[in-house]
Amino acid sequence: MPHTTGTCFGVGIGPGDPDLITLKGVAILQSADLIAWPAPDEGPSLARAIAAPHIPAATPEYPIIVPMRPDPAMAEAVFKRAASDLAGHLRQGKNVAVLCEGDPFFYGSFISIYTHLAPNFSCQIIPGISSLHCASALLKQPLGQRNDRVSVIPAGLDNSQLAHMFQQAECCAIIKLGRHWPRVRDLLREQKLDPYVQIICHASHDRERILDFKTAAMMELPYFSILLLVRPDSKSVPIES
Amino acid sequence: MPHTTGTCFGVGIGPGDPDLITLKGVAILQSADLIAWPAPDEGPSLARAIAAPHIPAATPEYPIIVPMRPDPAMAEAVFKRAASDLAGHLRQGKNVAVLCEGDPFFYGSFISIYTHLAPNFSCQIIPGISSLHCASALLKQPLGQRNDRVSVIPAGLDNSQLAHMFQQAECCAIIKLGRHWPRVRDLLREQKLDPYVQIICHASHDRERILDFKTAAMMELPYFSILLLVRPDSKSVPIES
Repeated sequence: MPHTTGTCFGVGIGPGDPDLITLKGVAILQSADLIAWPAPDEGPSLARAIAAPHIPAATPEYPIIVPMRPDPAMAEAVFKRAASDLAGHLRQGKNVAVLCEGDPFFYGSFISIYTHLAPNFSCQIIPGISSLHCASALLKQPLGQRNDRVSVIPAGLDNSQLAHMFQQAECCAIIKLGRHWPRVRDLLREQKLDPYVQIICHASHDRERILDFKTAAMMELPYFSILLLVRPDSKSVPIES
Repeated sequence: MPHTTGTCFGVGIGPGDPDLITLKGVAILQSADLIAWPAPDEGPSLARAIAAPHIPAATPEYPIIVPMRPDPAMAEAVFKRAASDLAGHLRQGKNVAVLCEGDPFFYGSFISIYTHLAPNFSCQIIPGISSLHCASALLKQPLGQRNDRVSVIPAGLDNSQLAHMFQQAECCAIIKLGRHWPRVRDLLREQKLDPYVQIICHASHDRERILDFKTAAMMELPYFSILLLVRPDSKSVPIES
């Protein structure tokens, strides 16, 4: 690869609060030749809004328009096309920063772009504060102490997989609740785990809301909700404060 | 609680690279009235070294001397004493920042201090980049995509628990390897999972080292090692780069 080829940086910009980006992330954004970010096809880009204070006015930007509620193949085509466009810039020796909500490699759409670019280009990942650690901080719920097992469980798994995971780790984070919430809720009740649950929606955003199980049980929950289940046998005992 | 009481901030300072602290973390350190940090009874404090560029020269500091290789009860007594001392400062209306390597609530000793202080004082957690996300970034190994389950597994668990966890999550991070490594190594071989393993020691520190299974198998590994096991049925497929 010629020495003039640029580097692609996946920059974790954290969960929402613009001050939860790292110094390293800010430095990359300030020196990048091009800043790319995902956006829905309707409405503004959340990632760009989070990173806005750190994007120099003169730096060119590249929006990656991801259709809302896409099927995976449709999104994949978008990311493939974006990677191909970004590759053109990298070949010209430009350094490209891609904004990633949370952490780039933790359930992030950047993984698709990375998969296309990594075989041919220098790539660096700048880790970010994930929704996992943000939820734990805001709920004031320690996650993992001594020999605790911590599992991150997408809510879209089937009931038997979910029930099994709940029994296997002292601390569980159930992510992407959204339309799966009624089913997850009923399962937690059946397993008598509802007393050990805390929920946060849109963590560290304007619309942030903290809910106990009883309140959440009567509601619909957005996709960007995270549920922490910390069993009483955990060393990360919940604190009454 | 009177309005003059100070707040205790658990500040995640990230895994080692001083630039992997958040802007929010830096702001808290620059405005705190007292900065506390853990240190071994011999040698310098790693936490203080990481945060050193952000500690104002005039800010008083409070070292928490934790005996090396303590039994949990001994460490617990140290943290209880520290919490009691910090409580004295909080009662005087001072804001206290406690430095926490990685994330404060992810296997951190800050959890002990928090447990003592939270019932009586205002506490805030500033999340940090955990060793989990740092290892994933440096190993260039995505962790979690679509419906992948991600489990964090302390190496000190017994073999049957470990083997079970390996089968239950597409992505596993085994932490605190140290003296447990020979046993974990043999178990991974037995389960024919060794081709899917990457290891990093002292991630983002001067002594950082990335190892494949074959190389690591002939070595002793330090306590601060993390092993990522990403099964081929994961959506976070390893990238050949």
